[in-house]
Amino acid sequence: MYKTSIFSYTLNTNVLQPKMVVARLKNPSPRIGHCTKVPRNSNMEKLQHGYLFPEIERHEHMHLQKYPHANIIDLGIGDTTEPLPTMVTSSMVDFVLGLSTSKGYKGYGPEQGEQALRKAIADVYYKDLGIKPTEVFVSDGAQCDITRLQLLMGPNLKIAVQDPSFPAYIDSSVIIGQAGDFVDKVGKYKNIEYMKCGPQTNFFPDLHKASRPELIFFCSPNNPTGHAATRKQLEQLVDFAKVNGSIIIFDSAYSAYITDDSPKSIFEIPGAREVAIEVSSFSKFAGFTGVRLGWTVVPEELLYSNGFPVVHDFNRIMCTCFNGASNIAQAGGLACLSPEGFRAVKSLINYYMENASILVNALSSLGLTVYGGKNAPYVWVHFPGSKSWNVFAEILEKTHIITVPGSGFGPGGEEYIRVSAFGQRDSIIEASERLKYLLYQEEN
Amino acid sequence: MYKTSIFSYTLNTNVLQPKMVVARLKNPSPRIGHCTKVPRNSNMEKLQHGYLFPEIERHEHMHLQKYPHANIIDLGIGDTTEPLPTMVTSSMVDFVLGLSTSKGYKGYGPEQGEQALRKAIADVYYKDLGIKPTEVFVSDGAQCDITRLQLLMGPNLKIAVQDPSFPAYIDSSVIIGQAGDFVDKVGKYKNIEYMKCGPQTNFFPDLHKASRPELIFFCSPNNPTGHAATRKQLEQLVDFAKVNGSIIIFDSAYSAYITDDSPKSIFEIPGAREVAIEVSSFSKFAGFTGVRLGWTVVPEELLYSNGFPVVHDFNRIMCTCFNGASNIAQAGGLACLSPEGFRAVKSLINYYMENASILVNALSSLGLTVYGGKNAPYVWVHFPGSKSWNVFAEILEKTHIITVPGSGFGPGGEEYIRVSAFGQRDSIIEASERLKYLLYQEEN
Repeated sequence: MYKTSIFSYTLNTNVLQPKMVVARLKNPSPRIGHCTKVPRNSNMEKLQHGYLFPEIERHEHMHLQKYPHANIIDLGIGDTTEPLPTMVTSSMVDFVLGLSTSKGYKGYGPEQGEQALRKAIADVYYKDLGIKPTEVFVSDGAQCDITRLQLLMGPNLKIAVQDPSFPAYIDSSVIIGQAGDFVDKVGKYKNIEYMKCGPQTNFFPDLHKASRPELIFFCSPNNPTGHAATRKQLEQLVDFAKVNGSIIIFDSAYSAYITDDSPKSIFEIPGAREVAIEVSSFSKFAGFTGVRLGWTVVPEELLYSNGFPVVHDFNRIMCTCFNGASNIAQAGGLACLSPEGFRAVKSLINYYMENASILVNALSSLGLTVYGGKNAPYVWVHFPGSKSWNVFAEILEKTHIITVPGSGFGPGGEEYIRVSAFGQRDSIIEASERLKYLLYQEEN
Repeated sequence: MYKTSIFSYTLNTNVLQPKMVVARLKNPSPRIGHCTKVPRNSNMEKLQHGYLFPEIERHEHMHLQKYPHANIIDLGIGDTTEPLPTMVTSSMVDFVLGLSTSKGYKGYGPEQGEQALRKAIADVYYKDLGIKPTEVFVSDGAQCDITRLQLLMGPNLKIAVQDPSFPAYIDSSVIIGQAGDFVDKVGKYKNIEYMKCGPQTNFFPDLHKASRPELIFFCSPNNPTGHAATRKQLEQLVDFAKVNGSIIIFDSAYSAYITDDSPKSIFEIPGAREVAIEVSSFSKFAGFTGVRLGWTVVPEELLYSNGFPVVHDFNRIMCTCFNGASNIAQAGGLACLSPEGFRAVKSLINYYMENASILVNALSSLGLTVYGGKNAPYVWVHFPGSKSWNVFAEILEKTHIITVPGSGFGPGGEEYIRVSAFGQRDSIIEASERLKYLLYQEEN
């Protein structure tokens, strides 16, 4: 069996630890010269760490300095690797070629997205859920929409997040001014409610313990745990929001990876239109991480306490702070939602989910407790008693594999690492072999 | 000669006036159903008008209902109309085709933009100005960067804008919470300093009258007046910022249209690196209004009052609130900065500037006082004693031409309209003829 003790070794001092990175960022080389009289934004000052993924990149960079010939396998950032279906790229090529003709040239489009794409998202992605095209706002991606939703909502709200969760919810909350001070001792911001979502509660918060947050960021299938909330769990969540007057910001960026009957949209739950906004994306659904395309659904029935429809203000945010997604990306998105395109992107998703199975099997065979990988392209691995940055560092040092330390997703991620199933098949197989070999070495 | 009196006619009551639009937006149909307990963001409540351009679109829509067969010529929103150079679209096509291959597929790129593009912007666009690639942040457009800069700076700063100016500076300031209440009587937000830039002061603010703003939004060539600030004016601006400890946010989105020796970048002015950020865009430079690509330069020497470099926080904003511009758009942008691409986009700019000449000549021949059109694709026309929304409405009613009422750019734009030189040549000529014919009718 796997000996977790190997992960409690003393860290190689050549490996830059997060605290050192922070220290360097907080104390840049002193400058001699003119200072403006503009004070640094106190919200920016409150941000505690470098954003997780750039920080992991920094570790990778240092690893390569130590081992210049290392064949690194990146199972860290969840970045798609497989070529786009040709029918999707053909549509974009046709559109781009048109831009060099009088007839095909297009300038500014509607800030909310092309009508045809809004309609396709409503009709195809949200089939039978009664979403109107005017409730769909096309964007350059879910992460960007999260910040725009924070701008919409403003600094004076109490937010709750799943713990662990995707860092952008908390970081954008700090930037907008909702978070309050960071409390080192507990690793949390004072004004943010961290709703623990561990295996003890089937990765769902104990809502009896929750206060009355005004905004609830909820990601399902969850990044990083890979858990897709069940219908019953989401019904509880919607009930909770309704009773407490909260707004749920539901991130369904990975919903296309759901293989069982868990809901793919919060709008499958009766009553959700009165309490929820949904953020989603073509990034993982269709491999558009670099092409950039996403959307947000704001139902007409969602009202502020004074009865004013949220959708009116969000429309204003999109028209003022955004200027439409790239029309080329939108042409590609529309192709993904055609019957042929939909089948093609689905086969990409199946490919990544086969990767997930391979990783789940390899990690399980080591005796590790493994979650996720069934309804999401992330595998969430438990290392009881170990610090997740130490596990991350040891795996990198000994196998040249990049993962993500669970604590990067909040204190609830400590003792875990996230392993991404995005990758080419041979890399995934090679990574599985290296992990097994590491075990073999440790055992002998 | 032209009789300005025609513009003081009583408005047709079928034309929806801005106040009516606002009233409709502020009092949406009452809703019956669940209200959340989330209060509407008070910053959003302070926004006074629908965003200018969507509001003009609404007018256009109503005009078409009244005259279903009207051949409308749109000289309103400054939207590019000419096909992109084939060498630019070829580069994008190659990139898109690559996305369907294992070798050419790309996922997430750096949030700050592809290294090659950052370098090309620094080396080609800012030739000899000493801008480093690491100071260039590629984005999806200047308007989006303006909001990100407001997020960076936070709600507690005093801002100043040119009056008239592009509405996004003020609207984003309201959304972030800097603006204070709107004072109806003067048509201004209480905490924003409106620096009058009219012909009396050669479209430059009287800085002796200015207080000590922390942020100065300054657009040159100016949208809407078309005035490119002279070197001497910009030297005064940099001096003012240095003495007062202000940060200038310099919007150079139209700099490629400058035909005389006015500076194309604030960084041509000695000392600007310690006091200025520059926002710019491929939208008007290369016809990328729909493709979406822009950039912001934050020099290393720009420091907050505590000595902390602004560039570090902006980098954090880009990594947290943005996820990189579309990699397809970036491939196109890189092509625009090749020697061949640069020549090709320059010829597009010349085309639009010939349009501007035609419009300037036509409007001048009517005896109107006309500004702009020399260093910018905007013509700024004075109608002394008239309300600009009335002028807008009469021109639309009688010639089916869309312009922009100057007051939409701030109280300093009253009595003016902005005429855009973006358009196909035959439309521009037709518009000029219609305007001359309108005069002819009025005279006879």
